[in-house]
Amino acid sequence: MTTDHTPATAPIMVGIIMGSDSDLPVMQAAADVLDELGIGYEMTIVSAHRTPKRLYDYADSAVSRGLRAIIAGAGGAAHLPGMAAAITPLPVIGVPVKTSSLSGQDSLLSIVQMPAGVPVATVAINGARNAGLLAAQIIGSADPAVLARISAFKQALEEQVMHKVERMAA
Amino acid sequence: MTTDHTPATAPIMVGIIMGSDSDLPVMQAAADVLDELGIGYEMTIVSAHRTPKRLYDYADSAVSRGLRAIIAGAGGAAHLPGMAAAITPLPVIGVPVKTSSLSGQDSLLSIVQMPAGVPVATVAINGARNAGLLAAQIIGSADPAVLARISAFKQALEEQVMHKVERMAA
Amino acid sequence: MTTDHTPATAPIMVGIIMGSDSDLPVMQAAADVLDELGIGYEMTIVSAHRTPKRLYDYADSAVSRGLRAIIAGAGGAAHLPGMAAAITPLPVIGVPVKTSSLSGQDSLLSIVQMPAGVPVATVAINGARNAGLLAAQIIGSADPAVLARISAFKQALEEQVMHKVERMAA
Amino acid sequence: MTTDHTPATAPIMVGIIMGSDSDLPVMQAAADVLDELGIGYEMTIVSAHRTPKRLYDYADSAVSRGLRAIIAGAGGAAHLPGMAAAITPLPVIGVPVKTSSLSGQDSLLSIVQMPAGVPVATVAINGARNAGLLAAQIIGSADPAVLARISAFKQALEEQVMHKVERMAA
Amino acid sequence: MTTDHTPATAPIMVGIIMGSDSDLPVMQAAADVLDELGIGYEMTIVSAHRTPKRLYDYADSAVSRGLRAIIAGAGGAAHLPGMAAAITPLPVIGVPVKTSSLSGQDSLLSIVQMPAGVPVATVAINGARNAGLLAAQIIGSADPAVLARISAFKQALEEQVMHKVERMAA
Amino acid sequence: MTTDHTPATAPIMVGIIMGSDSDLPVMQAAADVLDELGIGYEMTIVSAHRTPKRLYDYADSAVSRGLRAIIAGAGGAAHLPGMAAAITPLPVIGVPVKTSSLSGQDSLLSIVQMPAGVPVATVAINGARNAGLLAAQIIGSADPAVLARISAFKQALEEQVMHKVERMAA
Amino acid sequence: MTTDHTPATAPIMVGIIMGSDSDLPVMQAAADVLDELGIGYEMTIVSAHRTPKRLYDYADSAVSRGLRAIIAGAGGAAHLPGMAAAITPLPVIGVPVKTSSLSGQDSLLSIVQMPAGVPVATVAINGARNAGLLAAQIIGSADPAVLARISAFKQALEEQVMHKVERMAA
Amino acid sequence: MTTDHTPATAPIMVGIIMGSDSDLPVMQAAADVLDELGIGYEMTIVSAHRTPKRLYDYADSAVSRGLRAIIAGAGGAAHLPGMAAAITPLPVIGVPVKTSSLSGQDSLLSIVQMPAGVPVATVAINGARNAGLLAAQIIGSADPAVLARISAFKQALEEQVMHKVERMAA
Repeated sequence: MTTDHTPATAPIMVGIIMGSDSDLPVMQAAADVLDELGIGYEMTIVSAHRTPKRLYDYADSAVSRGLRAIIAGAGGAAHLPGMAAAITPLPVIGVPVKTSSLSGQDSLLSIVQMPAGVPVATVAINGARNAGLLAAQIIGSADPAVLARISAFKQALEEQVMHKVERMAA
Repeated sequence: MTTDHTPATAPIMVGIIMGSDSDLPVMQAAADVLDELGIGYEMTIVSAHRTPKRLYDYADSAVSRGLRAIIAGAGGAAHLPGMAAAITPLPVIGVPVKTSSLSGQDSLLSIVQMPAGVPVATVAINGARNAGLLAAQIIGSADPAVLARISAFKQALEEQVMHKVERMAA
Repeated sequence: MTTDHTPATAPIMVGIIMGSDSDLPVMQAAADVLDELGIGYEMTIVSAHRTPKRLYDYADSAVSRGLRAIIAGAGGAAHLPGMAAAITPLPVIGVPVKTSSLSGQDSLLSIVQMPAGVPVATVAINGARNAGLLAAQIIGSADPAVLARISAFKQALEEQVMHKVERMAA
Repeated sequence: MTTDHTPATAPIMVGIIMGSDSDLPVMQAAADVLDELGIGYEMTIVSAHRTPKRLYDYADSAVSRGLRAIIAGAGGAAHLPGMAAAITPLPVIGVPVKTSSLSGQDSLLSIVQMPAGVPVATVAINGARNAGLLAAQIIGSADPAVLARISAFKQALEEQVMHKVERMAA
Repeated sequence: MTTDHTPATAPIMVGIIMGSDSDLPVMQAAADVLDELGIGYEMTIVSAHRTPKRLYDYADSAVSRGLRAIIAGAGGAAHLPGMAAAITPLPVIGVPVKTSSLSGQDSLLSIVQMPAGVPVATVAINGARNAGLLAAQIIGSADPAVLARISAFKQALEEQVMHKVERMAA
Repeated sequence: MTTDHTPATAPIMVGIIMGSDSDLPVMQAAADVLDELGIGYEMTIVSAHRTPKRLYDYADSAVSRGLRAIIAGAGGAAHLPGMAAAITPLPVIGVPVKTSSLSGQDSLLSIVQMPAGVPVATVAINGARNAGLLAAQIIGSADPAVLARISAFKQALEEQVMHKVERMAA
Repeated sequence: MTTDHTPATAPIMVGIIMGSDSDLPVMQAAADVLDELGIGYEMTIVSAHRTPKRLYDYADSAVSRGLRAIIAGAGGAAHLPGMAAAITPLPVIGVPVKTSSLSGQDSLLSIVQMPAGVPVATVAINGARNAGLLAAQIIGSADPAVLARISAFKQALEEQVMHKVERMAA
Repeated sequence: MTTDHTPATAPIMVGIIMGSDSDLPVMQAAADVLDELGIGYEMTIVSAHRTPKRLYDYADSAVSRGLRAIIAGAGGAAHLPGMAAAITPLPVIGVPVKTSSLSGQDSLLSIVQMPAGVPVATVAINGARNAGLLAAQIIGSADPAVLARISAFKQALEEQVMHKVERMAA
């Protein structure tokens, strides 16, 4: 049903889904950061509007398949993250994909303004890299080894800034 | 599963659904105009986020139960109209319900900005009366008797204006 | 007055109008999906602001000419859908055309925020394909053969997604 | 057809129209300032959506009835000013009426974003007093006596400010 | 102080001002339509923020120099139209110039939301052609010959649409 | 430094912080749902702008104090969630608090639009209940007992809807 | 011309102006914080639109009268801060006053989006207290005694938060 | 820690900081205008989110290092200006950097909507040149020589306009 992009030793813990393959250039960044952090994931297309049953099955089986979080990206009237969150008890991270007419303002509001009882952890418009990082933080919340990798990741960010500081000063 | 509000001779042709009973004060206007036009309807609560299976069953059975259109009202990250439209081949009319923080701008964009292939016929924020009228127009599109009632309805609107014109001139 | 784009056996049931030929690249998508679904339509230019009488005549004669729905596209202060809806008892579908300065937010609000009594079934900004599909659903609401074609259309959408799922997994 | 609110010696030069009597509390301010400036006007209800023929007749006869400008107020998908401007060669002043859900942002965009060829002179949301003043300025543009009254009006505004300056300093 | 673009027989009746020569590509359209309608105008740069005294002098002398209306274009925090309107009793037409970051939404609100007592007749974002036409309508309001030219202009717009109707039907 | 609201047997796993005690009526809902789900939390005031050092210390010590997630609520130029996320490797959940002038649109954008590398899991405006639930989901992601409680919570939501369905049908 | 609210020993260093006495309830907060910090100020009404000459004179004489900064509050098409900044070389602080229809979004954009060459130091909608504080910081930038008072002010803010922390913990 | 761009005789009085070197093309304009006005400055990268300690140290030492104002540019959830203002008693000028999805509306609201007690002097989106000029005005507020340079700068702006006036008239 989905593709594994996981090193042999890393179990699949994160599901990355998107409504259309046109969202892949944005959503790939979520996969990339999970690769960097050594966290196993699967990535596939699930459309709330074109494959509603597939969405139900995907989200309903997520716990039993061992997933620990779902990242869902969608644009416009973006229902994929919220509908996934309606079905699974796992944390769902929503990525509002930028749209051509409203620049993702529609995506953002469609994802973040969920009613009480069904949260979606929303990141910035096109913020798929942060979605991947947030999934890692969720896993790291209970796994000191992963948390240490995130601390190292943050340390590396700081070092990159300091490197740029020096280059600007040169 | 739902309540009939229909005269003995009028078959139920329109389903009115909403995500929560808090939407009823807004959505009642759709029922009222269908009553005025003598079109049978049912009205119930279906929550995309809290009862996703019920939504699937409701929309999936709509044609076989004789419905000709579905009116769905929801607020915030409003997924009910679009998810109903994903499942049924019938026309789905979406009513963006006004919200306390964003005044229904979130509801409007969540409902109207549907991707190609899955339209929702969107009316104004809190425009439930127009949703009911649009459902009647859809039925009237193929039913000259209903169409005549809509023409009479429009004629009455004009007369109401002319009555106010006279009152202002008095 | 208008152009027929209809197979010999399909009566013209949908009128597609737009305020300017500059809207044609957007509105063509409504015609295309009606072609795919075998529903007869006519397509022409009617400007609310430059040809108000022509608009009146077009909408006023729509029922007698056999139309079952009107699709109207316009941008900016977009009055064409609402004014058509003011005149005809038929369902009118509005397509907000994207504009250069406000990206169609002006078009959307000008079309969707109609007062009680005169609905316009509004689709997404530049959502002409969905407008055509919605017109077909309106006809299908009372015509099982058309409804079956819409169900098949939705089935095809699902299959396209599944094809992409497999390609992504490859 | 309309009510005269004009002193015996002042010919009716300005038509004030609104879509509904619910707009009267806002639009009255246009009448008031014309009263203050001694300019004759008529005020009535003309609904673009509920009385489209009346709108056509009203705007089409405006020149021959001696009007020099039309003030049109409307809210939501506000088509009255633009449709009046489509029909008459006279200057049309549009007043976007504040709406409950979108605070008049819909009214403003529906009125101001007119296509090239058909301007509407738009004032602020609920800015009916300025609409009346602008109508007076249009008449004053060719009538030195009226222009002198406008200059006096502006002088009075300045004096009111200076009076408040003194009161604040007291 | 300004440039005349006027035929020998046409007195200068309209002043076109803009805050910067970067606004000229937009504002030229106001001049063009006045040329088409045979109305004399002058066009120059007046900056509210960089030449506040020049603005005062320009607006203060407008009546005595024979102007009948002022067209002012500006972008961003666009103060030129409102400040001109603060000084002259003539009608002032504001053109919100499209901006790179906010697409002219800032310009529009800065121009249209004037306080009671000081109206600016606002047209669409980048709507300079309509500003010129509105200036002509203001003059035509008291000048039957100009009004006739505007009626002919509107007739030509209709004919252009009908020409396009035929071309689309071909 | 903070207050414990935790049953004797539940370790403190979630920190709830807010910029001001004026945010408490909104943020209390996060605490309430954690109480319902039997998850220990602490709740206190930490102001990014008025106590920047306290923010640093709070976030920097969160892991060592045993926290598994931080919920931060703030309004306007809302920097608390993002700055906490800059400092701790734990997942940070941001609650945009509704503001009087911009209804929380400023809060939402200030919280959700974080740069790559530093995510904040953003919920709806005033969505503190969902923030609490999301914190529980994060813990439940690695704790089957908590996950079961969340599944039961979702089941209860569904039952509440079905109860309302019956009441509406009565 | 203006009112002094200054202790005998404090020279008037800040001018607080507003377009109307209706802005006083908002703008008083600027005066209050200057009182708290012992900085002399004057406060009066200056209307860009109703008293343009008075604005010119006020801003033109500000340096010679000993002012070190001007605080200007205005709402809607808010031109007062920008026009003051056009005339004086002193720093001008703009306070966007909340408006009834657009909640101050018009005021904010009218004030902050100034063209290159003429800055206005803009604070939050209705942020007059911060405007006063910013004026004090400008003076404190070159006056160590005032800067020390600002540092103490910030220290007091922190203490207030810590007091609330304790109260919440109680 | 930072780079000096200062003539031998000009002490460093302004700190220009930005969250990323990608902001440099925008922020360079602040440096340029300070160069034109002969005011010494330093420019470096300080990231609120990636180097929170560096931000603390930079802002905390600003007074002792002789700075008189800080200019901070940032985009998206832009926390750098507000966090700098939380730490230093000096005036902080915020530059909202234009973003790809929301055009800097997120940056603007994140910077300008600061809570009472912690102002940020906000300029236009991408308005770095005005930020530099405002820093100079702050210094000029207490330094007649700098103020004279600013008056000359404003005079030069006026002359540039008059030069363009002549060119347009040619």
